[in-house]
Amino acid sequence: MSGTGFAYPHLFGSKVPPPAPRWAGHPKYNFIGGHNDPSLVPVEALIEATQTVLRREGQSLALYSLAQGPQGYPPLRQFIADKLKRWRGIDSDADGVLVTSGSGQGIDLVNQMLVEPGDTVILEEFTYGGYLTKLKRIGANIVGAPLDDDGIRIDALETILAGLKKKGTTPKYICTIPTIQNPTGSIMPLARRHQLLAMAKKYGVPIFEDECYADLTWGGMNAPPALYALAPDQVVHIGSFSKTLAPALRLGYALAAPEFLGRMTAIKSATESGTGALEQMVVAEYFSKHFADHVGKLAGQLEEKLDTMIEAVEREFGIAAEPWRPKGGIFLWIKLPEHVDTMKLVQPALKAGIAFNPGPEWACDGADSKSRLRLCLPFRRRKSSAKASRPSPGSALRRPGFRSRAGTSGAPAPARKENAL
Amino acid sequence: MSGTGFAYPHLFGSKVPPPAPRWAGHPKYNFIGGHNDPSLVPVEALIEATQTVLRREGQSLALYSLAQGPQGYPPLRQFIADKLKRWRGIDSDADGVLVTSGSGQGIDLVNQMLVEPGDTVILEEFTYGGYLTKLKRIGANIVGAPLDDDGIRIDALETILAGLKKKGTTPKYICTIPTIQNPTGSIMPLARRHQLLAMAKKYGVPIFEDECYADLTWGGMNAPPALYALAPDQVVHIGSFSKTLAPALRLGYALAAPEFLGRMTAIKSATESGTGALEQMVVAEYFSKHFADHVGKLAGQLEEKLDTMIEAVEREFGIAAEPWRPKGGIFLWIKLPEHVDTMKLVQPALKAGIAFNPGPEWACDGADSKSRLRLCLPFRRRKSSAKASRPSPGSALRRPGFRSRAGTSGAPAPARKENAL
Repeated sequence: MSGTGFAYPHLFGSKVPPPAPRWAGHPKYNFIGGHNDPSLVPVEALIEATQTVLRREGQSLALYSLAQGPQGYPPLRQFIADKLKRWRGIDSDADGVLVTSGSGQGIDLVNQMLVEPGDTVILEEFTYGGYLTKLKRIGANIVGAPLDDDGIRIDALETILAGLKKKGTTPKYICTIPTIQNPTGSIMPLARRHQLLAMAKKYGVPIFEDECYADLTWGGMNAPPALYALAPDQVVHIGSFSKTLAPALRLGYALAAPEFLGRMTAIKSATESGTGALEQMVVAEYFSKHFADHVGKLAGQLEEKLDTMIEAVEREFGIAAEPWRPKGGIFLWIKLPEHVDTMKLVQPALKAGIAFNPGPEWACDGADSKSRLRLCLPFRRRKSSAKASRPSPGSALRRPGFRSRAGTSGAPAPARKENAL
Repeated sequence: MSGTGFAYPHLFGSKVPPPAPRWAGHPKYNFIGGHNDPSLVPVEALIEATQTVLRREGQSLALYSLAQGPQGYPPLRQFIADKLKRWRGIDSDADGVLVTSGSGQGIDLVNQMLVEPGDTVILEEFTYGGYLTKLKRIGANIVGAPLDDDGIRIDALETILAGLKKKGTTPKYICTIPTIQNPTGSIMPLARRHQLLAMAKKYGVPIFEDECYADLTWGGMNAPPALYALAPDQVVHIGSFSKTLAPALRLGYALAAPEFLGRMTAIKSATESGTGALEQMVVAEYFSKHFADHVGKLAGQLEEKLDTMIEAVEREFGIAAEPWRPKGGIFLWIKLPEHVDTMKLVQPALKAGIAFNPGPEWACDGADSKSRLRLCLPFRRRKSSAKASRPSPGSALRRPGFRSRAGTSGAPAPARKENAL
């Protein structure tokens, strides 16, 4: 239809964005987006799972939501409940799980439950850019809570909560990624989790817990229990299969107390006709048998990629780059010297075929993050031929010039300004 | 988590609905929802398609949207363009197609493009209930345009448009289902299509064309060209695979002029991370080879079901029920005598295990439709053992007491009040 115009552009709504640019493919060196490794998609096992599940119950695709209701395919919800019980300490069952079309839909539903224009929410100072764009669209007031190596700083959080209380403001939630924080990759220790829950309870604020990366911790899924496991009446919990299996599948999930989850389900089913059932069926069938094996293998290979990336960052940037070594996940959060503005590097990098997230896209306060950037792990692993001529993975981390965390090496770490309330 | 309450229900947003009721399954006799026939889900062919497409390119599931951009999987868009060219007269290519997560998302995106609170839209007087709930949620002003056997009545439409113009109101769109109207099942003749386009052009109003059922016309896909084929600058076109393949798959599509489609794509990709790729891949692979065969077989069996249903309606209601015999699709729209209020029949029917859509759910003006109801075709076909002892399909239609359309039989048809503007 190229060349045919739309006759009534003056009727477009006032908030309609400009057209999406024509898709030009990813840059050659793409360090954006939670992509997985093409070689780790278990193609034959997915085919086998498809065959098994479709022969058993494929005919039910003829019915909306497989005639199983709006919460999602029951065997997938059962698998989610089982995996969260085994690895995240959560005591739930299939009825306590809502399947969502990616965790993005989970975020939208939580926001629809709680956040109205002008409401205040507390996010981690550095956080997933998607939260920020969604909340800005709603017109929420975003307050960033400072982070350290263990996640949200409780003292700083109390200062924020007390300040808001003085103004008569109850934030609608504290949004946290306690297990493999995005972008820092930290894991909140158990004691801090209890402190966070106590502080949130003291000020009457729910916690919105996102565990999209929790299954990808180095050395096995042995993080402290989810916040939702510790205080299910205070917490709404979401997760995803994008990172553990494949992001082109759109499957996530949410757990919350029944009166919360039931309303989320009502909002979801009022606006769409269910999450794609074939993907739910295939993932339930595959992961019910292969989850631990698959995720263990995947995490090991992601850590190998991370080591390669850290090695390259060290080689190219020397002590100018200060990464927070993540404890899992798919990204590396790097601090460059204070005077560097990573926003100014985006376009020159793109011209060289390199894409990354500049810090301000992943932070509540753009100014505080301007010298930072996020690099997602590359699609592919190091070629084994190249590997032989380079230091073994992990070696870079042991070199004295490379700080795995701010303040933990001997080299002077640039001061980190905290977000002002 | 049953028994655990949410500690902060006072923080819920003001528009949050009550919790979804616990899913209790469909009623035994379910005449609601565009369900398909379980026996017609091509299970083995879908397994074969999955195997073929995943072996060829399953590894790309590791990348968001298969690294193919936000418009959707290119082979699926190519198939959609090809099928619309062959059967609906539309001259497009893969770039002119946006894949959506069901046609429901297509409706949401069109509304986001055009409709803001307080805006006026024109719908067919009897129409898909989903439009109504979505538009009411936005806060739009809905005006119903009267229908006859050939779709929107052009004279009545002009009265509406002239009346609105006098008040200084330009409607944001005229929403029509010209090919297998939902719920009447009519097909708009070619001359009427040209009249509709001319009238809309005269008043400067875009047309929102929904062709979710157009592939399911009795006797082959030989309806007049889509409105979008006739005037692509005036029309936004959506369609679905829910009805032709399986509603548990969430796949639809939209076509519009580039400046419209590009903005729809921008809205879609700002709010989610793509439509599930596995379903796109499998449907593209299967339908690229089997579309005409599958749809031909399906439509034939749907018509057989329709005949069975009409026969039963005639047997049980006699001349009290006046159905509009649809020219395709999956539903039957029935008029009962004026004094019957179908809303009052819903609960007693449910108690007897029977679900149907009362007229007001499927109409712009509740009062005008109170004696009507919509019956979707049942899940399963008549058992062949029963069939032998009953009249052959279609025979009911030839009996004198059964009116296939209002006003076309000898029996006096109840007067149909037109919607007042």
